[in-house]
Amino acid sequence: MARKASGKASSAITAMDVARTLGVSQSTISRAYSMTASISEKTKSRVLETANALGYQPNIIARSLITRRTNIVAVVVANLVDPFYPVVLDALAQRIQSQGFQTLLFIPSSGEQVDDVLPKLLQYQVDAVVLASATLSSAMAKVCAERDMPLVLFNRYVPGLEVHAVSCDNVAGGRRVAEFLHGLGHRRLAFVSGETTSSTNRDRERGFIARLTELGIDGCRQEVGGDYSYESGYDATQRLLRQAGPPDAIFFASDVLAFGGMDMLQAAGLRIPQDISIVGYDDVPLAAWRGYDLTTIRQPIDEMVEAAVDMLGLGQAQHLPVAPTTRLIMGALIERSSTSKRPVRIDLAKTRRR
Amino acid sequence: MARKASGKASSAITAMDVARTLGVSQSTISRAYSMTASISEKTKSRVLETANALGYQPNIIARSLITRRTNIVAVVVANLVDPFYPVVLDALAQRIQSQGFQTLLFIPSSGEQVDDVLPKLLQYQVDAVVLASATLSSAMAKVCAERDMPLVLFNRYVPGLEVHAVSCDNVAGGRRVAEFLHGLGHRRLAFVSGETTSSTNRDRERGFIARLTELGIDGCRQEVGGDYSYESGYDATQRLLRQAGPPDAIFFASDVLAFGGMDMLQAAGLRIPQDISIVGYDDVPLAAWRGYDLTTIRQPIDEMVEAAVDMLGLGQAQHLPVAPTTRLIMGALIERSSTSKRPVRIDLAKTRRR
Repeated sequence: MARKASGKASSAITAMDVARTLGVSQSTISRAYSMTASISEKTKSRVLETANALGYQPNIIARSLITRRTNIVAVVVANLVDPFYPVVLDALAQRIQSQGFQTLLFIPSSGEQVDDVLPKLLQYQVDAVVLASATLSSAMAKVCAERDMPLVLFNRYVPGLEVHAVSCDNVAGGRRVAEFLHGLGHRRLAFVSGETTSSTNRDRERGFIARLTELGIDGCRQEVGGDYSYESGYDATQRLLRQAGPPDAIFFASDVLAFGGMDMLQAAGLRIPQDISIVGYDDVPLAAWRGYDLTTIRQPIDEMVEAAVDMLGLGQAQHLPVAPTTRLIMGALIERSSTSKRPVRIDLAKTRRR
Repeated sequence: MARKASGKASSAITAMDVARTLGVSQSTISRAYSMTASISEKTKSRVLETANALGYQPNIIARSLITRRTNIVAVVVANLVDPFYPVVLDALAQRIQSQGFQTLLFIPSSGEQVDDVLPKLLQYQVDAVVLASATLSSAMAKVCAERDMPLVLFNRYVPGLEVHAVSCDNVAGGRRVAEFLHGLGHRRLAFVSGETTSSTNRDRERGFIARLTELGIDGCRQEVGGDYSYESGYDATQRLLRQAGPPDAIFFASDVLAFGGMDMLQAAGLRIPQDISIVGYDDVPLAAWRGYDLTTIRQPIDEMVEAAVDMLGLGQAQHLPVAPTTRLIMGALIERSSTSKRPVRIDLAKTRRR
């Protein structure tokens, strides 16, 4: 306890100092720094000016005991290895900062579930929670609801669970890829899935297969990656190629799976896109790198982040009891050189390969 | 204020409830949850058992007013786009969590300096600060020292600034690359730098050039990327190739720069490693992907993170006044297929290219 007290007591200006200088109460100082307390604009600017002149730094932590706010949003991210999530975390943290809040990061260690993180999260009395790349149990949803703690699932939703969720419209994305590949002339299609239990994977697959069926294409080959890693994409593609009648186009449930697949295909001597077209999902930065130059569905990260942070209602005096909503936002197909039309010479190549 | 009070008052068990049940004072409850307070093991376990049975969650925020600890470590990261930093952040956050602390994330928005983040950082009364991929001004170092707030620079040091710093031994890394390429028979070498003002870049370059000179090789070509991006690596390599007498090996100041360079070389029709050897720095996950399979210096992230968190002295009752130390940790050269020996047939190829 002695440790910081000495350093701080000698240098720090307190709210009391500001109050004395202005001849107002200490609660006036607190209210000037609160986003929700009632205080006239005139008093507020007088306080802020004097506080700045004196070099006063409000102590958010101490204030939280009065306002019952910590100005902290917990962000739980299960995965920072997939390049999609650093982009998401960057956008989320910046958006949260722009609202006058900060991000307290929770990364479940391997083997830990989101529910294991819950007790810690409650101890820090965070104002709101965003769960990205992490599934939520109904137990945790219940605890957050009881505490009136706003919670948003990002890039996920859990059917039957009454919580706010923001996601790319993955069914629509899957349909768009089916239409696009069909339009290029592809008929022997394959889908490589990631984590089969996630809503993202399920919806991308469902949209893709449903639209293919509508277009008269049945028998789309499927391989399970198991997760969204590079290795899983590589291995699943190897298994696909071992089957009779290889596909002329593969849709991967994520970009990173697709990168693994592309490297495998090239190692096997196949040319992209002349022999086989490849489509991913996410549009992570390296999808635009010339080594991959991957056609993909761009996740509308900025809109998704904006929607998620809006749902948290940060800085609102009352957390209005809004019915839990799942917001699905459309992604756009970004066409690059990993896909091409199937002209006649490719049909010859196909014959040769068989 | 009404917002959460209602939800919490109805459900939350307070320290007072636990104290009443046990017939002890409330401060005994606080002490049981403190890592530094003096309390007998017996009393401590009695309190914790009862608290758990009643469903009490200690409020870290409220406790921070007594202990003057928030159990929060601020991590300032200027960049999450380079795949090196998500790996660092993941390791840092997990290590900080394992010590009973959480990471409060600060990402300066574009145009913002670390010093602009400082007032916010102080408001949250964090217990310690880690600055990764961010330079520190002497003003900020002074403020932290005055407040006795432990601070560590990660993957950077600032000459003349008396703060703790942990970094890979970049001079030694650069020397190792020079020796390795020389040993393979390369004599026409080039270096592509990233952000020229950073200590990482400066040291890698210095070690590389110094060792080459010792080995009798002068006139190493140099190109400036300007930053550590893929595009900068691509463009700098293009400029290198335009010069007369192209290099037979390039050392890039980071893996991502190298990926840009490799894609440029391949687009120009050069074969890696037959025509040109490539070495990067960092060993980010995708350096091992088959599409790049990049020889590189592996940054010892786990040791670096361990050293950095140790320096913060989290959970220690007294922050001992240790003289600021710069810890440099050796990285290892990871040899992959982007480098090869220069046999006779390559000399023929060189003649052809000229």
